[in-house]
Amino acid sequence: MILHTPSLDRLINELTKLPGIGSKTAQRLAYHILRSSKHYSKSLRGALEAIEENVHECPRCYSFTENEALCHYCTDINRVNDMLCVVEDPADIARLDYSGSFRGRYHVLHGAISPLAGIAPKDIRLSQLFERIKNENIREVILALDSDLEGDTTVLYIAKHLRGQNLKVSRLAHGIPIGGDIDYIDHRTLGRALENRVEI
Amino acid sequence: MILHTPSLDRLINELTKLPGIGSKTAQRLAYHILRSSKHYSKSLRGALEAIEENVHECPRCYSFTENEALCHYCTDINRVNDMLCVVEDPADIARLDYSGSFRGRYHVLHGAISPLAGIAPKDIRLSQLFERIKNENIREVILALDSDLEGDTTVLYIAKHLRGQNLKVSRLAHGIPIGGDIDYIDHRTLGRALENRVEI
Repeated sequence: MILHTPSLDRLINELTKLPGIGSKTAQRLAYHILRSSKHYSKSLRGALEAIEENVHECPRCYSFTENEALCHYCTDINRVNDMLCVVEDPADIARLDYSGSFRGRYHVLHGAISPLAGIAPKDIRLSQLFERIKNENIREVILALDSDLEGDTTVLYIAKHLRGQNLKVSRLAHGIPIGGDIDYIDHRTLGRALENRVEI
Repeated sequence: MILHTPSLDRLINELTKLPGIGSKTAQRLAYHILRSSKHYSKSLRGALEAIEENVHECPRCYSFTENEALCHYCTDINRVNDMLCVVEDPADIARLDYSGSFRGRYHVLHGAISPLAGIAPKDIRLSQLFERIKNENIREVILALDSDLEGDTTVLYIAKHLRGQNLKVSRLAHGIPIGGDIDYIDHRTLGRALENRVEI
């Protein structure tokens, strides 16, 4: 074990808890912070404190907000009320909204069903989703979940639960990413892109 | 520009100032910190504060220390006093010392001469180095600087300055890294490894 000063070791240890940051990267970051002026460390601390104090979950859609009550997605009067886009993480909302293709409301599950990781339907915001669909007269639900095992499991679970209700349920289209080179796209994605081909 | 809440944007902005952290990584880190318990954000802040308050430069060798006066490399009585290893950054000391091959004193330049970046000899701790060599009766100086243009320039500058003094000046050996595959090693390194071949 390479030895640093105790405070440096402590900072390195905290930084390795971040995703994608190994011990070498953490060392480099910690020494960078140390070499920078104290002003940087202070403003980083300030930013962390602001997050702790200001950001909380919206009580309706469970995205992150700094508003007193509902978030700006829930209070925006220019959005339609009967379309609901379901995402796994709050970060997904910003990306979807930036696409400009959806102007309804959002609902954050905060995770996806994963029997392997021990995440059951009750561990994510599913009952709250079904509650909202009932209470808010939702007409269409778009499931914008990750295209992995957990996302697919969650999509199937939600679809099964909503079956028989007068409700349109869809999920994001699979296909070739824009700018994508067909040479590098796996055969399953290509198969979906062929099946869902669009007339021009 | 993808929109987050103001505090999130602030944290993302601070994180992108770290080396190797782009805006996508900063977003991922910021959302991770937000999703983690507030305990994590608090302990990260605590670690930053500890760095700010406790760590300062050793007044003799300019490495980072939390000691009141001199660092533990300067006060360690089991080290020889007449050998000095010169490094660019404080982080280099931990790595060199971990090798176990040097038990003398250190001197941190805090940079290297770089005409391109506008770093002149006076901008790094060179006069302090020459001062120490004179005052501490140094017999051997090992230049453990990076093997790049800036490191080489600094090595030449120091070697020229110390010429004519009764002093052994050396630099780290070039050669094949241990475990290195000859197929992947550039021809200049191979050339050095051949020139400096070691009899067995």
